[in-house]
Amino acid sequence: MASAGKSSVPAVERFKYSQRVVLRSILNRHDRGEGLSGHRVVAGGWIKSRKDRPAEGHDRSAAVAAAVPPQPEDASCFEALLQHLPMLRPLARILLGRLDADADATEAKPNVGPVTALLRINDGSSSSNLQVVLDSSMSLPGQVIHVGACILVEGVLQKASAPKGHAVELKVEKILHIGIADSQQYPLAKPKFSLEFLRTLPHLRPRSVTVGSIVQIRSNVTLASHEFFKKNGFIHVHMPILSSTETGYNSRDFQSTTPLAEPGLREAIGLETLKSAIMEKSKRIEEVPRSDSNKETLLAAEQDLKKTKELAVLLEKSQRDFLTVTAGLHLESYACALSSVYTIGPVFRADEPQAKRLTEMWMVEVELAFAELEDAMNCAEDYLKFLCQSLVDNSGDDLKYVSKTKDKEHTERIRALVSSSFARITYSQALEIVDEVKDRTFREKVSWGESLSEEHERYLVDDIFKKAVIVYEHPKELKPFYVRVRDDGRTASTFDIITPKIGVLLRGSQKEERLDVLNKRMEDLKLSSEQYDWYKDLRKYGSVKHSGFSLDLEKMMLFATGLTDLRDVIPFPRTCDRGNEW
Amino acid sequence: MASAGKSSVPAVERFKYSQRVVLRSILNRHDRGEGLSGHRVVAGGWIKSRKDRPAEGHDRSAAVAAAVPPQPEDASCFEALLQHLPMLRPLARILLGRLDADADATEAKPNVGPVTALLRINDGSSSSNLQVVLDSSMSLPGQVIHVGACILVEGVLQKASAPKGHAVELKVEKILHIGIADSQQYPLAKPKFSLEFLRTLPHLRPRSVTVGSIVQIRSNVTLASHEFFKKNGFIHVHMPILSSTETGYNSRDFQSTTPLAEPGLREAIGLETLKSAIMEKSKRIEEVPRSDSNKETLLAAEQDLKKTKELAVLLEKSQRDFLTVTAGLHLESYACALSSVYTIGPVFRADEPQAKRLTEMWMVEVELAFAELEDAMNCAEDYLKFLCQSLVDNSGDDLKYVSKTKDKEHTERIRALVSSSFARITYSQALEIVDEVKDRTFREKVSWGESLSEEHERYLVDDIFKKAVIVYEHPKELKPFYVRVRDDGRTASTFDIITPKIGVLLRGSQKEERLDVLNKRMEDLKLSSEQYDWYKDLRKYGSVKHSGFSLDLEKMMLFATGLTDLRDVIPFPRTCDRGNEW
Repeated sequence: MASAGKSSVPAVERFKYSQRVVLRSILNRHDRGEGLSGHRVVAGGWIKSRKDRPAEGHDRSAAVAAAVPPQPEDASCFEALLQHLPMLRPLARILLGRLDADADATEAKPNVGPVTALLRINDGSSSSNLQVVLDSSMSLPGQVIHVGACILVEGVLQKASAPKGHAVELKVEKILHIGIADSQQYPLAKPKFSLEFLRTLPHLRPRSVTVGSIVQIRSNVTLASHEFFKKNGFIHVHMPILSSTETGYNSRDFQSTTPLAEPGLREAIGLETLKSAIMEKSKRIEEVPRSDSNKETLLAAEQDLKKTKELAVLLEKSQRDFLTVTAGLHLESYACALSSVYTIGPVFRADEPQAKRLTEMWMVEVELAFAELEDAMNCAEDYLKFLCQSLVDNSGDDLKYVSKTKDKEHTERIRALVSSSFARITYSQALEIVDEVKDRTFREKVSWGESLSEEHERYLVDDIFKKAVIVYEHPKELKPFYVRVRDDGRTASTFDIITPKIGVLLRGSQKEERLDVLNKRMEDLKLSSEQYDWYKDLRKYGSVKHSGFSLDLEKMMLFATGLTDLRDVIPFPRTCDRGNEW
Repeated sequence: MASAGKSSVPAVERFKYSQRVVLRSILNRHDRGEGLSGHRVVAGGWIKSRKDRPAEGHDRSAAVAAAVPPQPEDASCFEALLQHLPMLRPLARILLGRLDADADATEAKPNVGPVTALLRINDGSSSSNLQVVLDSSMSLPGQVIHVGACILVEGVLQKASAPKGHAVELKVEKILHIGIADSQQYPLAKPKFSLEFLRTLPHLRPRSVTVGSIVQIRSNVTLASHEFFKKNGFIHVHMPILSSTETGYNSRDFQSTTPLAEPGLREAIGLETLKSAIMEKSKRIEEVPRSDSNKETLLAAEQDLKKTKELAVLLEKSQRDFLTVTAGLHLESYACALSSVYTIGPVFRADEPQAKRLTEMWMVEVELAFAELEDAMNCAEDYLKFLCQSLVDNSGDDLKYVSKTKDKEHTERIRALVSSSFARITYSQALEIVDEVKDRTFREKVSWGESLSEEHERYLVDDIFKKAVIVYEHPKELKPFYVRVRDDGRTASTFDIITPKIGVLLRGSQKEERLDVLNKRMEDLKLSSEQYDWYKDLRKYGSVKHSGFSLDLEKMMLFATGLTDLRDVIPFPRTCDRGNEW
């Protein structure tokens, strides 16, 4: 398939399942690619910016753009700079002539005389772009090579003409593929976009270098999770999405599994309406006199009845199908057999109809048998530290890129989480600390038995401990039915890990392993239906002390990226009001 | 928490987040644990079998059981042997006295004189059990320690009394925890169960050593998948579960995304019924004369109307929500930005209402930009080989355990897949081979344009090539709308990997990157609705040649385990007729 490797100049190692090289292997080297000068490669990517300069010996006035200092690595940085220093704008407009939407229109005009095009391309493997040089001898198809187009080219790496960025650029000798992008229509032709605008185009937004970096970070967080649990002897299990077991997510405000058919439908319209229809139709069929002339009418009526009956079956069935809110209960059944298990899967939320709330999100859930609260806390702390260390080790460039414009301190927060052990205080101690504060007033006063507010959490983390805090042993009423009640009868073996910026990042608990205590608790909460029989079996037969925790992957992503909107850190965000059009 | 490590005898390395050791670290050592003799450990697990022998110097007649050669590693093997040699049964009954369901009843009786109990426990980390010795000095709670109970004990590893199995056993000095299991009720008290019976107890079945091994193998397959793609520079992305984009799964028989509310509901009953109800209720409210005496009636009627209107909104909305059948289309949008991506996630099927068909399954999907059909084939072949090599390297014991009773040849099939390169033939060549067969007749004759039957696939793999076969370039009508049409206009750039025993294990294709060809194809198939606009955008802006493939994780699990029923290889199987009661 590839003809690239046959040259006398040695080829850079190509991607195994394509003739191209991965740009990361050139751009993210310690020498910024310098050692690869002279190598022949095939490279592909999407064009992020284009500048033209007249070919040697041609009109100098057209060369102004080339004489201007090169735009920063990412055009968006320059745009960001302009936002802070608006007085630069008119100057920039004159010098660069292409900051606005109509800028690309000038590219579409036939060039006066032969030009050399400088293209910056990105293949998603790196937050840096490779400069690709197409000179006039290439009979440049100027009308089609715009921002947004995809190109696959063969050429030789050479010392960069503008050494401020990377050490090498690619001198093109052959164009292997062009996928055009009409600059008048391409929605990402401008150099910079808000994340909000990008959310309106979930299918194209990974082409933004920022979103590409976010996805790389998410991939790292996911893979590092698997690595941590594998290293520590956990077994990965896939938990079900469809379920009819309701999960007491919070003992005060039970959050049911998300019904596939919306709640109330069955009672309000569906099944009863159908049942009367079935009765009526059956009666009508019985009343039709049996004769040859009525044969077809009868057949049609019977077909119709059959269809209605099928619908009734379907509706009755659909009432039992729910989308899971947490895999926790099911995961316990595997922990109570295989001891140390975890899962990473999607969970669903139908309540809280806020635009920013995701209805679909991914969760890491962990359960350990023969483990008490402290074991789960230790595991959760190690896990978060492992994730952060992995981000520092493997996502440095992406973190830096996202930090640059979004949140300059977030890399520091990640490093700090790794280096200091988490503070551990009980819920009651947390309340005391907050109560004793004299130098400031909180908007809300919290009494024992109520949840700490975000304001209090932030105070504990930012002002008192200045690091992540584990708050444990909450009033049992604040937590779901399955948490283990402590000997005082008032508190439960639970914990929340609170981090700077995010608030509660991870929740854990020891589970109630005593059948009689669990039964009592479920009776108190009027949760004694048959649907929990299987869950109680885990206590009836070979009960074991077990503890676990769960982490919202999207919240971890906010911590990892410094961003603030959950919709920016998941590839296709689903919310109550929109999202599934894609 | 732990007091175990304080003895003078060095402790075996314990599990990091519990005081116990992982049994695998004792049982799966090359020396079968021999080198650990004398070590003090805390061990936990569920009791798989129990035998009593009189304590030293007591009634000899009760010692018969102990004199009998120990039951094979897994009690089920002995049971299996008995099935083949029924003449052994009466003898076994006399000697062992506990092969039947009532055997445990004898354990419940108070023992005559002090006894030493030999328990085999398993913590899910290994397919082997650890023998635990509780002697009479422990004031043994005989009534509660039965098969199915969970124990956590502290003791010292010593040379095994019956060295046929493992080299060490654990002499208990302290019982730290007992979770009882009433032997009269515990459904898994018998030594052996069919997988079919175990399926009726999805919450308890992981306690069967066979199912435990299956889960370990599944964990390995999942983690090895991540490892392969990470090693090769792919980015992991989470694709959406909720979607409204229908996926042409097969161009002849379109399989839509699975509707959340069952299909037809909207037309048949829901929305229209509600709309008339809303009209009627509004009319009635208008007709009520406004007076103080009617105030409450009106308020109630208005509340009722409001509720009905909300339901109508919910129903209308729920019609737009679907569960994904494949992440492929969405994955393309990430490949057309980040070049090499993959996802592992759940997919759903509502059609084909067969009991054995899963409605919820997990799929590995892969998409490569700048890659043509051959690249995807190479990647898929390498991927399958990597998975199989990982099974051989890391799941040897589990494979052996599952093989023992289920399918003795399956480990050989796994090794064979690693060692020989896959045969590659076009669909047309496959048809020619089948057509030329003289020495046997097939039930069905397949003409060009029809799918190969399972019988043909098996013939190609088992009789002709005797290894995995890639059949590629199928008639385009057999494949979904998005596959790339070849220059002949009749075939498409597609491939299926067919393996012994399983049939088609993996499917792949090059995607149609030419917008005009895609438009034409979608028009021909009457698929030109707006819902695909975003998908077409990927071709409109910076189109790139791209190819990919997908693997049903459950099918791979059948290949890996030698089992034949999909419901046995997924933790909580969901099928049309049942499953979500758990």
